[in-house]
Amino acid sequence: MINVGIIGGSGYTGGELLRLLLGHPYVNIEAATSRRLAGKDVCDTHKHLRGFLDMQFEDLSPDEIKERCDVVFVAVPHGTSMNIVPQLLDGNNNVKVKVIDLSADYRLKTSVFEQVYGMKHTNPIDAVFGLVELHPDVADEMFISNPGCYPTGATLSAAPLVAAGLVDAVIFDSKSGISGAGIDPSVASHYPNMAENIQPYKLTTHRHRAEIFQELNRLDNSLTNISFTPHVIPSVRGILTTAHIFTKSTLSADEVKRIYTDFYKDKPFIRVIDGIPTLSAVRGSNFCDIGFEVDEHNRRVVVVSAIDNLVKGASGQAIQNMNLMCGFDETEGLWVAGVAP
Amino acid sequence: MINVGIIGGSGYTGGELLRLLLGHPYVNIEAATSRRLAGKDVCDTHKHLRGFLDMQFEDLSPDEIKERCDVVFVAVPHGTSMNIVPQLLDGNNNVKVKVIDLSADYRLKTSVFEQVYGMKHTNPIDAVFGLVELHPDVADEMFISNPGCYPTGATLSAAPLVAAGLVDAVIFDSKSGISGAGIDPSVASHYPNMAENIQPYKLTTHRHRAEIFQELNRLDNSLTNISFTPHVIPSVRGILTTAHIFTKSTLSADEVKRIYTDFYKDKPFIRVIDGIPTLSAVRGSNFCDIGFEVDEHNRRVVVVSAIDNLVKGASGQAIQNMNLMCGFDETEGLWVAGVAP
Amino acid sequence: MINVGIIGGSGYTGGELLRLLLGHPYVNIEAATSRRLAGKDVCDTHKHLRGFLDMQFEDLSPDEIKERCDVVFVAVPHGTSMNIVPQLLDGNNNVKVKVIDLSADYRLKTSVFEQVYGMKHTNPIDAVFGLVELHPDVADEMFISNPGCYPTGATLSAAPLVAAGLVDAVIFDSKSGISGAGIDPSVASHYPNMAENIQPYKLTTHRHRAEIFQELNRLDNSLTNISFTPHVIPSVRGILTTAHIFTKSTLSADEVKRIYTDFYKDKPFIRVIDGIPTLSAVRGSNFCDIGFEVDEHNRRVVVVSAIDNLVKGASGQAIQNMNLMCGFDETEGLWVAGVAP
Amino acid sequence: MINVGIIGGSGYTGGELLRLLLGHPYVNIEAATSRRLAGKDVCDTHKHLRGFLDMQFEDLSPDEIKERCDVVFVAVPHGTSMNIVPQLLDGNNNVKVKVIDLSADYRLKTSVFEQVYGMKHTNPIDAVFGLVELHPDVADEMFISNPGCYPTGATLSAAPLVAAGLVDAVIFDSKSGISGAGIDPSVASHYPNMAENIQPYKLTTHRHRAEIFQELNRLDNSLTNISFTPHVIPSVRGILTTAHIFTKSTLSADEVKRIYTDFYKDKPFIRVIDGIPTLSAVRGSNFCDIGFEVDEHNRRVVVVSAIDNLVKGASGQAIQNMNLMCGFDETEGLWVAGVAP
Repeated sequence: MINVGIIGGSGYTGGELLRLLLGHPYVNIEAATSRRLAGKDVCDTHKHLRGFLDMQFEDLSPDEIKERCDVVFVAVPHGTSMNIVPQLLDGNNNVKVKVIDLSADYRLKTSVFEQVYGMKHTNPIDAVFGLVELHPDVADEMFISNPGCYPTGATLSAAPLVAAGLVDAVIFDSKSGISGAGIDPSVASHYPNMAENIQPYKLTTHRHRAEIFQELNRLDNSLTNISFTPHVIPSVRGILTTAHIFTKSTLSADEVKRIYTDFYKDKPFIRVIDGIPTLSAVRGSNFCDIGFEVDEHNRRVVVVSAIDNLVKGASGQAIQNMNLMCGFDETEGLWVAGVAP
Repeated sequence: MINVGIIGGSGYTGGELLRLLLGHPYVNIEAATSRRLAGKDVCDTHKHLRGFLDMQFEDLSPDEIKERCDVVFVAVPHGTSMNIVPQLLDGNNNVKVKVIDLSADYRLKTSVFEQVYGMKHTNPIDAVFGLVELHPDVADEMFISNPGCYPTGATLSAAPLVAAGLVDAVIFDSKSGISGAGIDPSVASHYPNMAENIQPYKLTTHRHRAEIFQELNRLDNSLTNISFTPHVIPSVRGILTTAHIFTKSTLSADEVKRIYTDFYKDKPFIRVIDGIPTLSAVRGSNFCDIGFEVDEHNRRVVVVSAIDNLVKGASGQAIQNMNLMCGFDETEGLWVAGVAP
Repeated sequence: MINVGIIGGSGYTGGELLRLLLGHPYVNIEAATSRRLAGKDVCDTHKHLRGFLDMQFEDLSPDEIKERCDVVFVAVPHGTSMNIVPQLLDGNNNVKVKVIDLSADYRLKTSVFEQVYGMKHTNPIDAVFGLVELHPDVADEMFISNPGCYPTGATLSAAPLVAAGLVDAVIFDSKSGISGAGIDPSVASHYPNMAENIQPYKLTTHRHRAEIFQELNRLDNSLTNISFTPHVIPSVRGILTTAHIFTKSTLSADEVKRIYTDFYKDKPFIRVIDGIPTLSAVRGSNFCDIGFEVDEHNRRVVVVSAIDNLVKGASGQAIQNMNLMCGFDETEGLWVAGVAP
Repeated sequence: MINVGIIGGSGYTGGELLRLLLGHPYVNIEAATSRRLAGKDVCDTHKHLRGFLDMQFEDLSPDEIKERCDVVFVAVPHGTSMNIVPQLLDGNNNVKVKVIDLSADYRLKTSVFEQVYGMKHTNPIDAVFGLVELHPDVADEMFISNPGCYPTGATLSAAPLVAAGLVDAVIFDSKSGISGAGIDPSVASHYPNMAENIQPYKLTTHRHRAEIFQELNRLDNSLTNISFTPHVIPSVRGILTTAHIFTKSTLSADEVKRIYTDFYKDKPFIRVIDGIPTLSAVRGSNFCDIGFEVDEHNRRVVVVSAIDNLVKGASGQAIQNMNLMCGFDETEGLWVAGVAP
């Protein structure tokens, strides 16, 4: 049994960590912090957890939380995390805590981070990029940087073909549920703006492109023609990515199927399917469903991936990392089917 | 470990039974029948269960399925169930199987059934109405009739005040997600008809009124002024019932709160809350959330209940019945929080 | 040709006034005010009007706008309007302008207003309640108070039976699109809170009850048992009201039909239909569709009305008032079918 | 005043023709056919038109309808139209009627049609492709083939750059409201399948690709690398197309803006906007809104177009064609703003 704490427990990512950790057989939820809501019942914010959790948000310093926890999830905005993580990792007093950061602060090389996010990085530390299927070495780490939601679905959709050196260019056209924009009301999340709509944004400049580029370029450093355009759709959860992949040669559907099946063999949360993925099949679960068709016209393979942005795209993947870091089975507490319809 | 079978496994109710039973520690899913899909993979229909179930639909007679199972759920349309249940319960060959019928065939007294459904009942059998919170005696039964979705949420919202003899009249104004209409496309479930809409139907003549009447009248046989009007809303799951309850005397909020809290003491799936229930807090879970306000103008209490129609309103409640019939803890396999947001 | 101004042109009501007035053959849109957006293009806010309007929001005092206009619509929050309307109506300089106030400030008797809204009324003026179908005398007025959205649909659904002295009690259970909450993001309008949900609120205490009470009580002053419970639904536009009407005697469907048809004879925007109204049939239009069923059990008639809250429930009705006040045909600029599907 | 008939008036396209033609000052709606609904009130199907139309569907032969009409719209499925159009155009008895076919039967060269649709074309006739902005010569024709919904939005989004010879390759990633699938319930349009989802389909093989290819290739016959992938989104109306355009050289935003503005100068229904188009701004209207961003990484321009699939993508465009064919102003009856929010 391990004690787990969450820094930033009042948002959607924090709520989803709590919901999923409640089903983990080896976890005691020790603390969830929120400066603004300190002293308030966690279930006043996360009403679906009523009856499961009798705890209040606390206002804890990194030093305080690490005294009580074996694992700490950091679920705060980018730019904030870099002021918390180093203290958590600082091993004085012989306290050692494992840390999983869900912010963007440690996903990119420092120089790239500073350019993309337009801010100075005050506390650079090397971290493994916790996309477990591509980075099995997370098992040896004390600190993991959890991937962004879009990069998870996009990278997984293209990685097998890229790793095989078969790709000339990729255009990722991604469609995300609005929960990715967070728990606070905004113009984008205003129901009349979102309902019966689909809203592209940052057509060419979304920051997540840098993560996708980093990960795919790592698999094939000759591949640089990578584009990414995000949209929000009238859905709470889910990211569906349509990856338009131009290949160096013409591939048959059988070849593509074999490449994906081999690449994701023994990866329990990747389901390579016949047919086209759908968000409802992964809702609430840690799966990434992948399907595809081959275009006979243009040496294009269209690969579609579907994830739940709050689970595989955030909190579920973070727990998947925790499982490996702690020596648990990768699927512990996560082997739950999606809720459909 | 018990072997469980589902007759009619291809619809939403069947799919939800499968999803929930997968998380039950003492259940082996032995068989799911579908005449139309016999031989097909269950997960071709219920895609969210891929990776969890490696089984095909079968075309089994009642005698065949009862040979292999300890418990059988019957999830077929009304009028069909009455031709299946008697064979299942027939104890020849010393085979004894517990049966939970999710259809309407055994919920009402035979004479009422025949009037409301406009058909002859070919095989009447007495059954306990499996609304567990009002019928704890289900534990002693071999055969349970599982309540309708609307009657579950409506009856639970008013039962405490009715049982206290305080009610003059009730108008239930219920709003249901469209999954209640089933997995087959229909005019009602056609997206352009449902989106950005709310559709009342059978304003005064819905068949579920008879179940609500039966259950509330059982608690107070002087209460007959009971009205029920259903609506479908642009939601897949969930039933929210607004119960406009006219009371015999003026009640304070404190009194009402105490009456509900006492009545549902020790009922793990009823959460009497401060504030107003919301569908997202119960989505995917077996809870019934109940909140209320007292109207100072008209001796009216407005009680709101929220359930997931496919869980507490159907498959979850059926498993709750199974748990009691089999001597398991009432919450076994069902103690899971809703998926929100 | 008349010159029309809008005080408070940047919200949904203002935008809808602009959209509808663009189709009015006798109207010149002279000015739209917004303190916050003064100088900005109107079409930056109301993007659907691009190509139709080349004007900027202005920051105008009541005296300034009335110099330029024949009719002024006041579309500001309650409590603000009372500081604007008197100046508009003040006839010094021999300037006479017709005024239609869309706020709540002049809908209720002053004493009732002060109690319901919990504020002192600083500038009481008598105004006709501009529910045209019940107040044809608006034609003689210089100042009209435009009804609230819920009271429009609710009052119209019950008025014929109430006016006939046939009603014992009414429970209005209303369901509104979220645009009624305005153009600014809020917790209620946050997409993840609203999607796949239906949210009751102010179960017994919504301020619009006072308007409904005033109007129905005016038709039958013995009727006081009037309840109102509102909900928001996952829809941008539309209010559907389910009126549970308990009658003094049992009525046949034919009688009810005749009462409604007679009452609304020569009312072009009321469509008494066979069957049950649906929001999509009135979307974008000024119609109120009304249908009903008679309950044989409980001397209850269930009447359903459907309106577009932004049109018949606000801006369309305001223009309907303007038409009568200005001697135009009641339907001028408003005789447009809804947009369905 | 012209007499207009609609063959196939009971679907969404027929209903939208009726709605829009009702606002046309020079049109008398003479007839709407439906074999299945002959004799039934048109407004029983198109409920939003109640009060506007007092007519019944008729079962008319092509010869019968052309006797009574000056213009006939053919709104029937592909494969059916080819058996109707020739009779309509046949000039015996000196009856001359203008015909606009909304099916796919006459959009493509016959050989291409036969390959793409997998059927023999029984009655080939040459027709101008009625995408008015690219085919101003429709004004001289008696017979026009109205473009498909996807090809309208996709072609318009890329045409200016293609016509300038600047394009290497285009990937159209289109997202359509489900009304494009028609008025009859289907698995795709089943609310639980569509809500909170986005469903790609025919990733590489949608038939509309051939139309897009034909039209863009006509503008630059060296351009052949054209891909098209459609999706349905939880929206009733609207198609948003994200065009990923790879250009031969790097273009500045100013250059792109000038190219689009020049190309669509004097095209009243094309609005080249700053910022990103949104479906709600065009809902119910005949506009095509176009916006874009330039990608500094990959010589890519991302152009987004938004149309209402039932208006500019079908019935509105058909009336735009009718206007030109009949010598009316192009915007007659169509100069109406969208309904937002």
